[in-house]
Order: sequence, then C-alpha cells, then structure tokens
Amino acid sequence: MPEIKTPADTLTVMTELVHPNHTNLLGNLHGGQLLYWMDICSAIAATKHCKATVVTASVDNVSFQNPIKLGDLVTIQSKVTRTFRTSMEVYIEVWAENMPQLNKIKTHEAYYTFVSLDRNGRPTPVQEIIPQTPEEQRLYEGAIRRRQVRLILGGRMKVEDAKELKELFLGK
Amino acid sequence: MPEIKTPADTLTVMTELVHPNHTNLLGNLHGGQLLYWMDICSAIAATKHCKATVVTASVDNVSFQNPIKLGDLVTIQSKVTRTFRTSMEVYIEVWAENMPQLNKIKTHEAYYTFVSLDRNGRPTPVQEIIPQTPEEQRLYEGAIRRRQVRLILGGRMKVEDAKELKELFLGK
Amino acid sequence: MPEIKTPADTLTVMTELVHPNHTNLLGNLHGGQLLYWMDICSAIAATKHCKATVVTASVDNVSFQNPIKLGDLVTIQSKVTRTFRTSMEVYIEVWAENMPQLNKIKTHEAYYTFVSLDRNGRPTPVQEIIPQTPEEQRLYEGAIRRRQVRLILGGRMKVEDAKELKELFLGK
Amino acid sequence: MPEIKTPADTLTVMTELVHPNHTNLLGNLHGGQLLYWMDICSAIAATKHCKATVVTASVDNVSFQNPIKLGDLVTIQSKVTRTFRTSMEVYIEVWAENMPQLNKIKTHEAYYTFVSLDRNGRPTPVQEIIPQTPEEQRLYEGAIRRRQVRLILGGRMKVEDAKELKELFLGK
Amino acid sequence: MPEIKTPADTLTVMTELVHPNHTNLLGNLHGGQLLYWMDICSAIAATKHCKATVVTASVDNVSFQNPIKLGDLVTIQSKVTRTFRTSMEVYIEVWAENMPQLNKIKTHEAYYTFVSLDRNGRPTPVQEIIPQTPEEQRLYEGAIRRRQVRLILGGRMKVEDAKELKELFLGK
Amino acid sequence: MPEIKTPADTLTVMTELVHPNHTNLLGNLHGGQLLYWMDICSAIAATKHCKATVVTASVDNVSFQNPIKLGDLVTIQSKVTRTFRTSMEVYIEVWAENMPQLNKIKTHEAYYTFVSLDRNGRPTPVQEIIPQTPEEQRLYEGAIRRRQVRLILGGRMKVEDAKELKELFLGK
Repeated sequence: MPEIKTPADTLTVMTELVHPNHTNLLGNLHGGQLLYWMDICSAIAATKHCKATVVTASVDNVSFQNPIKLGDLVTIQSKVTRTFRTSMEVYIEVWAENMPQLNKIKTHEAYYTFVSLDRNGRPTPVQEIIPQTPEEQRLYEGAIRRRQVRLILGGRMKVEDAKELKELFLGK
Repeated sequence: MPEIKTPADTLTVMTELVHPNHTNLLGNLHGGQLLYWMDICSAIAATKHCKATVVTASVDNVSFQNPIKLGDLVTIQSKVTRTFRTSMEVYIEVWAENMPQLNKIKTHEAYYTFVSLDRNGRPTPVQEIIPQTPEEQRLYEGAIRRRQVRLILGGRMKVEDAKELKELFLGK
Repeated sequence: MPEIKTPADTLTVMTELVHPNHTNLLGNLHGGQLLYWMDICSAIAATKHCKATVVTASVDNVSFQNPIKLGDLVTIQSKVTRTFRTSMEVYIEVWAENMPQLNKIKTHEAYYTFVSLDRNGRPTPVQEIIPQTPEEQRLYEGAIRRRQVRLILGGRMKVEDAKELKELFLGK
Repeated sequence: MPEIKTPADTLTVMTELVHPNHTNLLGNLHGGQLLYWMDICSAIAATKHCKATVVTASVDNVSFQNPIKLGDLVTIQSKVTRTFRTSMEVYIEVWAENMPQLNKIKTHEAYYTFVSLDRNGRPTPVQEIIPQTPEEQRLYEGAIRRRQVRLILGGRMKVEDAKELKELFLGK
Repeated sequence: MPEIKTPADTLTVMTELVHPNHTNLLGNLHGGQLLYWMDICSAIAATKHCKATVVTASVDNVSFQNPIKLGDLVTIQSKVTRTFRTSMEVYIEVWAENMPQLNKIKTHEAYYTFVSLDRNGRPTPVQEIIPQTPEEQRLYEGAIRRRQVRLILGGRMKVEDAKELKELFLGK
Repeated sequence: MPEIKTPADTLTVMTELVHPNHTNLLGNLHGGQLLYWMDICSAIAATKHCKATVVTASVDNVSFQNPIKLGDLVTIQSKVTRTFRTSMEVYIEVWAENMPQLNKIKTHEAYYTFVSLDRNGRPTPVQEIIPQTPEEQRLYEGAIRRRQVRLILGGRMKVEDAKELKELFLGK
C-alpha cells in the first residue's frame, strides 16, 4: 500500500534576482519572464508528486497587479493542490522584496496544470494527493471549479455537466 | 477626429528557433518559454494599438496540447481583439514547423490582456478598436465573456453582474 | 514536374526587442547582435526554399548607418533572391521602431549566402527560384554580380571570368 | 608629437567554447554566433587603436568553409590593418580546436570596419596606423581595395574613381 | 536596543534545473556555473543579515566531488555563520536530485565571505549574529579559523598572530 | 620519450565585456560571474596540458579587492603551475580596463585545481609539468603548500603529514 502523499511534500521554493534583461522600458519585470519562472517552479512541484516527466497542460487566469522592479528579489513558491486522473493542479505564490531593505510584498498568485507522462510520452495516472490543513482543503475544493472553467473554455466540457461551477454561478 | 483603428493594424509576427536551452528532458519546448514569447509578441500588438507603454494584466486559460520539438521553427502571431477602458485583449496563435521539411501545424492559442500606462505608470484610456472581418467580430464578441470570467475568478465582479457569461452558462 | 518556386514563398519575418545586453556603451544595438539575428532570419528563408539543412556560406558587405536604440522594436525580413547550383542568396532588410510611438525607419540591408546540405553534410543541388515581380527581378539580376565579387575576393574566380562584373566596372 | 601606433598594439585575442545553444541542427556553430563574436573581438581591437567608442560600419565578404563543432574551442584574433579619416579596418582570424585533443585548424578570416565616435556620437578623426612587418604591410595595401569595393557596392563611390580596384580588375 | 539576529533569519533557498548550456562535454554541470549560483544564493543570505549592499570578498576552498548531471534539479541553501566587523561568512550547501525520480544527494559545500557596503561603496559595520543551535555554534567557531587561513594566504596576517589556527595545526 | 611540457604551453587568454546582466546594483561585476569565467579559462589551460577532459576539483581562496565596472574590458589569463598524480593546479590572473580609455589594472588572482578524466570519467594520470622561468618556479613551489591547505581543510590529510605547510607555520 503506498504511503499517503500530501501537498506539503511538493513544496518548491525558487529565488531569482531581477536583472536588466528581465525588465521592460519602465524598469519592471516582464510579465513573460515571470510566467516562465512560475512554469519551472510549478513543474518541479508536480514532478515531486508524480516522480515522472510532466508537461504544462494549462495556465489559469493570472493577474498582474503589483509591478516587480529591477534589482528586486523574487521568491516563487508552489505546491500541488489536487490531482485528477493523469494531471495535477499547482498553486503558485510570488513575493517581491526590494534590495537591500528586503521589504516583502505578495505580488502574484496563479494556477498551472501539468500532465504526467510515461516514458513514451503518453499521459499516465498519478497517485491521489490528500490535503491536510484547512488551507490545503480550501485549495483542493476550488480546484474542481477551476478545472471546469478550463474545460468549458477549452470546449471540452458542456456547461450543463459543470455541476460545481453551476452552483457557484447560480448561488446554489 | 481620430482615424478608425482595426485589429489588422496590430498584427505582429515573431519567429523563433527552439534551442537546447528551451527544452525539457523529453526534448520538447518548455511551456514557460512559450508563455514568455507569447507575452512579448502580444505586448507588441497592444503597443501598436495604444502607442503607449503596456503591462501584462492577465493571461487567460492557455492550453498546451501539441508538443513543440527541439529544432522546430515557431511562429507566433498576435492581434488585439477588443479594447476596454484602459485595457486591451490580445489573441495569440502559435504554429510549429519541423526543420528542414517545414510541415506546419497549429499548436496553441491564448488570450493575454494588457493595460496601457501613461508616463507616470498609471492606467490611461485607449482608443476603441473596430473589428472589420467576421473572424475579428467573433473574437470581439467573445472578449466580453472572457473578461467576465477573469473578473469573477479574480474576485472583482459578482456573478450576477456577468450578464453575457450567465447567458452562456444558462443557455439564454 | 515540380511546381515553380518564387521568392515570395520564402518570405520570413522576425521581431526582436533590443534588451540591455544587446547594446554597447552608447546604448545602441551591437552590430554583432544584428548580424546574428540576420543570420537566423535569412537561414530560415533559405530553408523554406530548399527544405534542407543550410549553412552560412558568406556574408556580403553589410553597412551600418542608422543606430538602433535600447528598447527599439526591430523587424527583420528576408527572402531568397536567386539560386545557384547548391547555394542561395538571401536579401535581408531591417527596420527599427522606437517604443511606444513606433515610428519606423529602415536601418540596414544585407545579402547572406547559404549552401544546402544533404544528410551527410555535403552540398546538394537546390531547385531554381523564379522571380515574379520587377523588384524580385532586379534583385535576381544583381545576385550574379555580387556572387562574382564574393568569388574574386575569396580567390575562387579569376577577374577575367567575371563577365557581368566587368561590364559594371567598364561601363559596358 | 604623438608616438607611432602599430597594428601589433591592437592585437586582441578571445577564446570561446561552443555550447549547445550556439549550434544548428547539424551540431555545428551557427554562422550568426561567429559573426557576433568576431564583431566584439574586432571592436575591441579598434578601440585599442583610437581609445574612443566605435561602431561597426561594415562587414566584408566573410566566407564560411570549415564547420566548427559543438564543444570546440574557438580562438578569435583581430588587429587593425589600416586607418582612414574616421574609420579603421580590422582583420580577424578564427581557429577551431577539438576538445580535448586540441588539434587546431584555421576556419575563417574576415574584415570589419569601425567608425570612431566622439562623446556626441559623431565620427571623429583617428591617428594613422603604421604597419611594421611585411604581413602588416600586405594587409595595409589590400585595405584600400577592399574599401573601394565597399564604397562602390554601397553606392557611395563611382567605379571610375576606384583607381586601385580597377588595376586589380584590369590587370594593370 | 536592536533585536537579536540569528543565522536562521538569513536562510536562503534556490532551485535550478541543469540546462544543456550549463554542462561540459561529459554532460555534467560546469564547476563555474555552480560557483556562480552559490555566489548569488550566499549574497542574498548576507543581504538578509545586513540589509545593505554586499560584495563578494572571498571564496574558500570549494571541493567538487560528486558531478551534477544534465537535467538534475539543484538545490542551494545558504546561511550566515558569523559576522566580523564589516564582513559576514556564509555557509552554502548544495544537493542534486535526478529527474524525475528525485533521489537527493548532497554534492557540495562551501564558504563565501561578503563585505557590507554603505551608499558610497565603503565597508560599513554589520550587527553581530548570534548562533542558536549546536550546528550553528559549530559553524560559528570554525569561522574564525577559516578567516585566519584566508588572511594568511592573502598575506594580510602573520602566522604567529593566527592563534586559533595554530592550535589546530599544533594539536593544542 | 615524451617531450617536456611547460607552463607556457598552457597559456590561455580570454577577453570579456561586462554587460548589464553581469552586474550587481552598484553597477559592478558580480563575483559569481567572474568565478564562472575564471573556471572556463583555467579549465582550458588544464586541457591544453593533459589533452583530456577535466573537471574542477577545487577553488582556492579567491580575494575580491578591486571592483570591475559595467562596460569594462576583462582579460583573464591562466596557466598550469604544477601537476600532481591526476590533477593540475592552475594560476589565474584578471585585469580590468575601462572603455574606451583602456587603463589597465590587475584586479584578481586565484588558483583552481582540475582532475584529468579518462573516457569513463575516472581520474587518469597526467604528464609532469616542468617550470622554466623563476616566476614559474615560484608558483610551482607554492603549489605544494596550497595543496596541503586544501587537503587538510577538506579533511583528507592530517596536519602532521603536511610537511611543507608546517614549515610555513612554524617558521622552519
């Protein structure tokens, strides 16, 4: 019998300094550069869960509210929120700290989904993840609704089949 | 009176070769690298419309279905679909061609949203874009629903105010 | 019977933003960085023609008159002008646009030559290209003279055999 | 009275290892990457002569005959051959050595021309360079003909004014 | 009265994937690339302590015993061990995990020293760090001997003044 | 009988320009970037001696006294000082020159040690190097003491066996 696997087992932390080439003409971090770092960090979290090669399946609605500046220290933290048959949703949080004072603010959060692949590059089942804390439980429950949004927008699910999402929209 | 501005005015094409550093252990393009290129390409399309500095405001549900291989030629094409008060939605399409045979397949599509900024870095109004072709009209109309998904998921709109989206979900 | 191939079939467009690492101490794009981008863009145009691996055979006299600035948007466009037995000449044009106003000026033009290789890395014949427009015709005719300059300077052709070039020099 | 300046004073040596990102699908060094390194190396040689900022003015006919392989050690050596009023021609030689045996072969040679700029970015006169060895004398004499080719091809000199070049073509 | 500062306050974790460009011809991580990552990671730890700009003052004897492979996940962890008047010693540990199995082995450890600078770039005093755990205490005590080795080898301390080091060598 | 090999046979020179991405917030070259360049340059010197693949075995106490500025020209020179059974010590010197005036100052020196590997990645004996000049002789003699420091600090030699080093510490 396999041991229980938890979101905490997948925790991954990355630290990056914002270099000149990472910035736009306002001296702020390019959104695309951050999307790249978030992809690497969350792919590692997914790999920690399934111990197999993973590929990015989707990126959810990422909002960019607080600019990150040239020279800032960026901390990216990710962990798996929920597993589906062959895929895993990963929650990513991003903080920025100015240098050298290191005042830290949370700047972004996002959800990426990864598919686990076998050696022939085909999707392969992943073990279920079991949330432990109230925070992990909350992320776990939201994952089903985010998945339904993804599938409907991608044309792979009918609206009437998105039970949890309809409850959200219809207030039931 | 300003001249009419159209999606075609914002068309932007980028070409990239997939280098070893762009790939994962399966020899396929990293999702994060593609997200980065799509951000650059779509930011240029948005800049062509508003002639001002733009920052990424959000990335919509991007799906990754077809892997892109080491050595492939990647073509990224973007154009603005719709303007809101200070923001623009951009539609991005991605094709991959193997080298040297150059068989071309469409691999990805995505929507990014950008905010136009004035010289002090504050959001500034953008001129309205007027769709011209049936394809541009279809993208224009979908943009309002995608915006409502973004705002609801971001906690900045109530479900009951998302009129166009409710029609989608309730079949009206 | 193979279909006719034209210069327009090889048209390739690249878009690049000038980052800090691309610039010299005056804040202008390094000549060497531009030579690199032109090589990639023109190699793709040549590949589109011959559908085989190509290697750079020569770079013609490139002139650098207008500096390109940090933050500028660079557009590089290339197409094959003429084929020889196993090689192709490619014409490259470069434009720069300042950001975010996007005033566009033409900054460079150049000719690169590529050799088509078979799977063993040996030169292999390429199909003839047939110019269609007056502009393509003009580029096609100039290609023979540029080739003679290359061969004479490279010590692989005697001056007296460069018929077209002698006419240029002798006014006949 | 200024001291005499010689080509040997400008000798510049660069060493690079060919990394995966520098190569094409045949595993050979991209021509464009080599053009970039040659530009940096020759710009330094020109700077050593004029002690001022320089910008690339032109690249002469570069031939690419011997491929350089992934993992090879590349040595680039440059020195100024001749000065004109505000510009300098630089001669560049390239050798490749396989690793770890280090068998060395000469793979390329090229001529780049640089313009010397004052603090306002305007061309500024450079001190004359005086060749010392027979090899330096030979390069010095060839420089005038190469310059005439550049000016004629660039449309900035009439054929009948290119005295040295005509002698080459007419055998006088 | 300032609050007590401890090594744990400076803990910094970086995660990197080994890309093709990071490797030598055996497919192992270049020593120089690892030295670079360790420098960034330890500079951040030092900055967390002194909240000022820091510059690398010295790198101690780093041993490279276990090769890190292409595609491995590298985790670098650093914390300040001891403060001197204007400098801080940082202890760095490195682990490698193969992908996707993630078997983790410790591969390197090293000590870097940083100087804290004021706004004019001059060395500035740093607050004392107070070790809390037995492990931190052990690193704290070793720091004085490592410093004496550095100063003697750098010719800035006489052997007879290196009291703690002599005890090590003389068994007292 | 093999020919004699000397330190001069291994001389390697690298030239680098300090780009924006190489610098910290003070506009000076990152220590880690310099450590990287020194590793590449000294690995090439070691390869020139043993004509085999080498891996970094250790980096000795490197001191960073003079900052190198953005835009400076960096010259790195390395040569093998002494061989041991399967390893080689390399001495590295670094100079910086400001651009375009090119005033040259020596900024760093360091010792790296490399192990020579056979095709299976196992340490393999290297031919002895024979110092020729007084300077080479001085570096050769110091190498034995630096090696003892490395081995003692790495826990692979007992203090009482470090004969040459004890003489240094005990004044004999």
